[in-house]
Amino acid sequence: MKRNLLLTTMLGVYLSAGFAQTESFDAAAIQKIRDEGLKNSKVMQTAFYLTDVSGPRLSGSPGLKNAQEWAAGQLKALGLQNVKLEPWGKFGKGWQVDKYYAAMTAPYYHALIASPKAWTPGTNGPVKSEVVLLIADSVAQLDQYKGKLAGKIVIFDSKTLTTATNFNADARRLADSDLVKMENAAPQQAGQRRNFADSPQFREMMKMRTMRQQISAFLTDEKVGCILTLARGNDGTFFTSNGASYAEDAKPVAPELEMSGEDYLRLLRLVKGGIKVQMEVDTKTSFYDQDLNGYNVIGEIPGTDKKLKNEVVMIGAHFDSWHAATGATDNAAGSAVMMEAIRIIKAVGLKPKRTIRIALWSSEEQGLFGSKGYVTEHLGDAKTMVLKPEQQTISAYYNLDNGTGKIRGVYMQGNPQVKPIFQSWLQPFNDLGAKTLTINNTGGTDHLSFDAVGVPGFQFIQDGIDYGTRTHHSNQDTYDRLIEDDLKQAATIVAAFAYNTAQRADKLPRKELPKAVSDSK
Amino acid sequence: MKRNLLLTTMLGVYLSAGFAQTESFDAAAIQKIRDEGLKNSKVMQTAFYLTDVSGPRLSGSPGLKNAQEWAAGQLKALGLQNVKLEPWGKFGKGWQVDKYYAAMTAPYYHALIASPKAWTPGTNGPVKSEVVLLIADSVAQLDQYKGKLAGKIVIFDSKTLTTATNFNADARRLADSDLVKMENAAPQQAGQRRNFADSPQFREMMKMRTMRQQISAFLTDEKVGCILTLARGNDGTFFTSNGASYAEDAKPVAPELEMSGEDYLRLLRLVKGGIKVQMEVDTKTSFYDQDLNGYNVIGEIPGTDKKLKNEVVMIGAHFDSWHAATGATDNAAGSAVMMEAIRIIKAVGLKPKRTIRIALWSSEEQGLFGSKGYVTEHLGDAKTMVLKPEQQTISAYYNLDNGTGKIRGVYMQGNPQVKPIFQSWLQPFNDLGAKTLTINNTGGTDHLSFDAVGVPGFQFIQDGIDYGTRTHHSNQDTYDRLIEDDLKQAATIVAAFAYNTAQRADKLPRKELPKAVSDSK
Repeated sequence: MKRNLLLTTMLGVYLSAGFAQTESFDAAAIQKIRDEGLKNSKVMQTAFYLTDVSGPRLSGSPGLKNAQEWAAGQLKALGLQNVKLEPWGKFGKGWQVDKYYAAMTAPYYHALIASPKAWTPGTNGPVKSEVVLLIADSVAQLDQYKGKLAGKIVIFDSKTLTTATNFNADARRLADSDLVKMENAAPQQAGQRRNFADSPQFREMMKMRTMRQQISAFLTDEKVGCILTLARGNDGTFFTSNGASYAEDAKPVAPELEMSGEDYLRLLRLVKGGIKVQMEVDTKTSFYDQDLNGYNVIGEIPGTDKKLKNEVVMIGAHFDSWHAATGATDNAAGSAVMMEAIRIIKAVGLKPKRTIRIALWSSEEQGLFGSKGYVTEHLGDAKTMVLKPEQQTISAYYNLDNGTGKIRGVYMQGNPQVKPIFQSWLQPFNDLGAKTLTINNTGGTDHLSFDAVGVPGFQFIQDGIDYGTRTHHSNQDTYDRLIEDDLKQAATIVAAFAYNTAQRADKLPRKELPKAVSDSK
Repeated sequence: MKRNLLLTTMLGVYLSAGFAQTESFDAAAIQKIRDEGLKNSKVMQTAFYLTDVSGPRLSGSPGLKNAQEWAAGQLKALGLQNVKLEPWGKFGKGWQVDKYYAAMTAPYYHALIASPKAWTPGTNGPVKSEVVLLIADSVAQLDQYKGKLAGKIVIFDSKTLTTATNFNADARRLADSDLVKMENAAPQQAGQRRNFADSPQFREMMKMRTMRQQISAFLTDEKVGCILTLARGNDGTFFTSNGASYAEDAKPVAPELEMSGEDYLRLLRLVKGGIKVQMEVDTKTSFYDQDLNGYNVIGEIPGTDKKLKNEVVMIGAHFDSWHAATGATDNAAGSAVMMEAIRIIKAVGLKPKRTIRIALWSSEEQGLFGSKGYVTEHLGDAKTMVLKPEQQTISAYYNLDNGTGKIRGVYMQGNPQVKPIFQSWLQPFNDLGAKTLTINNTGGTDHLSFDAVGVPGFQFIQDGIDYGTRTHHSNQDTYDRLIEDDLKQAATIVAAFAYNTAQRADKLPRKELPKAVSDSK
């Protein structure tokens, strides 16, 4: 209670700074948006094209390019203006899997669930070998394997030799108690992230990474046939990542598979149990280096108000995915919701005062590159804080990237001034479960790129569903895991937020700039 | 309460028929069993050999034979007598997978999680084809496809186009409320099973089966390249079955894959969405017809009491599995528990009065064939009820086949006379969660073969864990899903029950014979 009183007092100060205490909005327009979004949704059709039809949308891959072109075509068909694939800078090489086959062939036959790690080469023809256990806690220990691994399939030890049985459900929604906790959370301290970099955990992580790189270099030099890596996940689900750099000048690495827990651990238990294991791997991957640039899909509904049309509300989501599934919840979901939000606004014939711009980012998975590149190009440099005039024109950026779960509220990203505004805007959707505002930041996605240059950037609070346990970067992040009602709800709320932001007398209130630096003007 | 009073009264009657109201047992022996079983267990080593090392143990396969020979060797090494692979009759052909590869190759590449259905032929070289949707609610509708399917990969429609998200945990234990319900359950009515055969559900099932057989015959005649079937399961887990008969004279069928839900439904959604889908399948399977017999592994600890040594206590579990994993919970678990129970009795140096015999059945999965064959050979014919003298010598048969879950009690199989006996015998294990007796029958496994000829046959009540949701006949029924503490507990209790039964003054009380027929004497 004390915290709330304090917050109210703080807000009183902010409120006097220039916006109405009771935030008004066009209730009739919002009702139209709600009707269109909930009763006439096209979000699943869009999601179908982004997932099943397009396939994996790994950064730089032909799959991503095809999907981007399809999305741009859709935005044009909706009547958006200035639709384009806008380069955001140099990414690196594209990559895709052209063939995956791996099986244990002795002591008996068993086909294995796995995938090449992103940006690793294929075996280009079958590699047949005994599975060799490599145990090395230090680089010095690698010496014993020197000259013995050429053409071999290599496996590493694991602390746990079985995957866990699931006594908890994969999927859950935020409970009321979770939401109350978020609502009452204390503002996060600046520098929390920096503190991690000084932590023993971080140092251990970096040590392990260096160690892995040294092992990788050793194995590449030794010309191993294939490296097997234990992937997180169970029951046939496994989580993927990259096994090499996408950089144009990346060092060569050995072929490497990321394998489902049960299959990997069976091989490991056998090898550790003294049973000779034979395997066959036949993979093919392709690299694409003709165009090293990364692209974002951009389009807009131009503003109609003489004074305000040069100001912009942005909505966005990253469009790229990992490679072992179709990136349904990460992040076809967010992309489809954003495309649907735009469709809703067009479909109900609203004429926003400010311009509403959609951005479908790429290379979020490698470090928010698409949104960072966009921000650097248009708004300013987050490092030097040299800002461009356009920085002043963006009222807000709204992002969706936490899976298929419906919207439960908004992370205010440390900006308490938006609380009464968002509270008011969420009111028509309280019945759909969206009502929580938390002062907290959330990280890991593209609103951070905007936040970093002082533009209000927000990620919605979403029900987690099975994002953490089952889908996020996994081989099972498929259309099946999308929940239609949740995506409809999210698209409707995003459309409402975008429209309300476009119609508001003022731009959204801003926090202090991250660092006090000179403006480029 | 009323039911309990009634039951007590009923039991009073039975009790007067010849056994002590308070069932006694050798507490010191049971304590030794408990110490050995819980503190010096070898059950996981046995399970490792039955699963990881042996691989799938499909009826008739070389994998099963190897595992049977290993198990017989283990029993001999334990000092058991009369250890043998005993033929139980003619099974049919063996079968195994020698290669599995399947991938979608357009609109993009995606390797598919699936397996040949048991006893189907392989493609024997790559089959490349468009995926063709076959919609036929009646055989007449097949005509439209005549002459169009040669070499094609065929998919069927599905009522649901996505797999379900798991909002419930895969694994759970029986709650106290479940156990109370079982304890208080009314005896099942005889004839319930027969009634199902008259039900509309059963007629519909048989109609569908006939329809499927007709479609299968049609597709085989048309020489399709491969049939795709939607398997139950999700997240990379799929459940398997047979796609053809194992009979020596089985009709030829087309190659057929049982595919994980997400992969199958992606193909189906694409095809139904008008997207051309190309696939490649390359599978190889082998048939084995040199020895069509089925075998059970049998061994025994001979009884030491002059009068009682010709009487027998049997413990058993089926040893065969499905083919897409290593049948860890179905039923390496039960087999390892039974082998461990025997080991415990030998290890603590007990000298049972009656003979204790272990039987590891085969072809349970095809219809309890191993145990039925054994019973017919040794005990009598369950159809004619012509019984053999040996039928009188078996005091009880104890079975374990409901997964990895620990023992929570016993299904009394409609025999209330065993209640005070089992209650007493369970007492030393109440602290390990085993205390529930239900009058109910449970079906689907090998104790039924004994029950059918009037020999007391019991299956233990077990915690379900993830048997129904994740492991039972699935491609994920692996060593990972075994829970060590549960298997230790189960082996300890089985050892105690076997020993107590061997030492008891009388054989266990019997129910009335299923049908009054002449004895073979």
